[in-house]
Amino acid sequence: MKYHALDTPALLVDRDRLEANLHNMAELTRCHGKMLRPHAKTHKTPEIAQMQLAAGAVGLTVAKLGEAEVFAEAGCTDIFIANQIVGEQKLERLVRLARQCTLRVGVDSLEVAVPLSEAARRAGVRVGVRLEVDTGLHRAGVRTKEEAIALAHALAKLPNLELDGIFTYEGHLYQANSDQERAIAIARMSETLADLRESLVRQGFAISVTSVGSTPGARFTAPVPGLDELRCGVYVFNDRMQVARGAPKESCALTVLTTVISVRPDGRVIVDAGTKALASDKPFADQTMGEVLEDTSLRFVAASEEHGHLQAEGGTRLRVGDKVRIVPNHACTCVNLHERMYVVKGEEVEDVWEIRARGKFL
Amino acid sequence: MKYHALDTPALLVDRDRLEANLHNMAELTRCHGKMLRPHAKTHKTPEIAQMQLAAGAVGLTVAKLGEAEVFAEAGCTDIFIANQIVGEQKLERLVRLARQCTLRVGVDSLEVAVPLSEAARRAGVRVGVRLEVDTGLHRAGVRTKEEAIALAHALAKLPNLELDGIFTYEGHLYQANSDQERAIAIARMSETLADLRESLVRQGFAISVTSVGSTPGARFTAPVPGLDELRCGVYVFNDRMQVARGAPKESCALTVLTTVISVRPDGRVIVDAGTKALASDKPFADQTMGEVLEDTSLRFVAASEEHGHLQAEGGTRLRVGDKVRIVPNHACTCVNLHERMYVVKGEEVEDVWEIRARGKFL
Repeated sequence: MKYHALDTPALLVDRDRLEANLHNMAELTRCHGKMLRPHAKTHKTPEIAQMQLAAGAVGLTVAKLGEAEVFAEAGCTDIFIANQIVGEQKLERLVRLARQCTLRVGVDSLEVAVPLSEAARRAGVRVGVRLEVDTGLHRAGVRTKEEAIALAHALAKLPNLELDGIFTYEGHLYQANSDQERAIAIARMSETLADLRESLVRQGFAISVTSVGSTPGARFTAPVPGLDELRCGVYVFNDRMQVARGAPKESCALTVLTTVISVRPDGRVIVDAGTKALASDKPFADQTMGEVLEDTSLRFVAASEEHGHLQAEGGTRLRVGDKVRIVPNHACTCVNLHERMYVVKGEEVEDVWEIRARGKFL
Repeated sequence: MKYHALDTPALLVDRDRLEANLHNMAELTRCHGKMLRPHAKTHKTPEIAQMQLAAGAVGLTVAKLGEAEVFAEAGCTDIFIANQIVGEQKLERLVRLARQCTLRVGVDSLEVAVPLSEAARRAGVRVGVRLEVDTGLHRAGVRTKEEAIALAHALAKLPNLELDGIFTYEGHLYQANSDQERAIAIARMSETLADLRESLVRQGFAISVTSVGSTPGARFTAPVPGLDELRCGVYVFNDRMQVARGAPKESCALTVLTTVISVRPDGRVIVDAGTKALASDKPFADQTMGEVLEDTSLRFVAASEEHGHLQAEGGTRLRVGDKVRIVPNHACTCVNLHERMYVVKGEEVEDVWEIRARGKFL
């Protein structure tokens, strides 16, 4: 079946581009002797997780316990939840999952660690923990070396937890205006993390892993000695946010197929994909909502919930019923709106993958 | 069960506020002798549709055929798809649905109408159509009176279609800077629609309904003679976009319950609801991502996919594990991310409703 025959909106993934993206990141990390633990929140799809593991990933990263459960169920044996898990209901599920697979989870305070330790002790399991460090995003994570060392000492007194690493998410790099700024920010971050790790090791903690995240940071972090593990997510698909940060346009593997439903004489073209099929993310100066693959002269000027508003300068050849593919601004939030993705090679639909961790935010 | 006991993120709807919102819009339209045909794309939930119909709504509006199927299956007998339905697969489903319920659908071109007519003829059903008029949003819809009249004449020649009304969506009102601007825009729109309808009637077309949309426009459109039907959607919940356009804060019925997972000494509070539980909509000058119901001094300064970033000036009493409710910026895109909503009266969870039309964008 050709993808043109699919009803729309439909999420398409280009298999060749997906495979190239997987290969490139696997190579970058392998050549620099780094571990790759891809963030599965981007694709939420067991088939892609299996491809990542087959390409050499040491395990998966997820943001949510519900995602970890889906991937464990699908056979992944080593999962890091790079987030704080809080609340009795979740902790019961977490310790159950810790029996099924090698599970690590983030901690940045005793308020998070104590109930986790208690739940693990009651269940008679050991849970790996990694200490989250805030290196500039100002999200979760300890802010100072003193805070990190105090927390490590406190963690050491808690039963059934095993501290084996430190991690950060350098999401503040998305704000950098140039590769030079990005490189300098990475250099500072690396220094901070190395200093912290050295202090922890000197005090007797067995910190075997320093883990960093982020796709746009990867080409800068991969070469740095002492950064052991990369948790890139969006590299599998890339998107317009990544292109704005240096990814090649030809690496965008994900598109939303959409049908033209209205064409006006002034070149306004309305398609059947809006923010409920593409997400509302507009992280750009130009404020456009996506890019039309077939005709980049069409500007995606606005989106309602169920309509995309395209504008063609000086008329268009598009007609009602024509189908075009939109490259989304942000692959992660776009994928989360769909139940399945169609795997395309050239024009042929080769597979349909269920996005099994979609909406698993509990 | 108290809502505090729910695992998070969880979508809550306050039953009292929901009922008050339903009652108020029903009263506004009833007193002015107008028909209310609520847009169900906001709630996507059969239980709320039933409440709207019980309160006097003449039927439902939807944006998508998949939504229409869900509500017809749930027993709704009169549905208007206020959108252009394009493509053979959808048209086959549409004519099947037209056997189950009174179905009307938008048209703004012959390219949309001809295949619809052919599908209806093949299936031996009659389908109601309404002519979409662009009154300033520049989305779908005919732009001029001449275009409208020409299309009406062409529609009259197509078998199995029954033109009974004209409709517009005055979404451009969201851009108005004041109620005065909004009132003037509505006055102009009303004049345009009245003039068009008169012309159509004079040429022999049985136009029995002029239908308009939009919650923030309702208090201006409801009194206007000649506007027969209102298709408001978001009034059931309201949200921060509506509050910015004059809705009372106390009318916001929808919140996302979220748990504090990290607190930093500078007053940074991280919660477990980000753009995948709230949506990414930021239609505000202040660029905040939502409002904390329990403490409006906390600013929702940023959201990652799975984290909300709140900032408290001068410290906070919130601790890890505390739960707060976030009023979303945009209820429609927020609801679309959830599988179910918890119906709350005071602190008590009284019901759980499945959001059955969630993601039905085909």
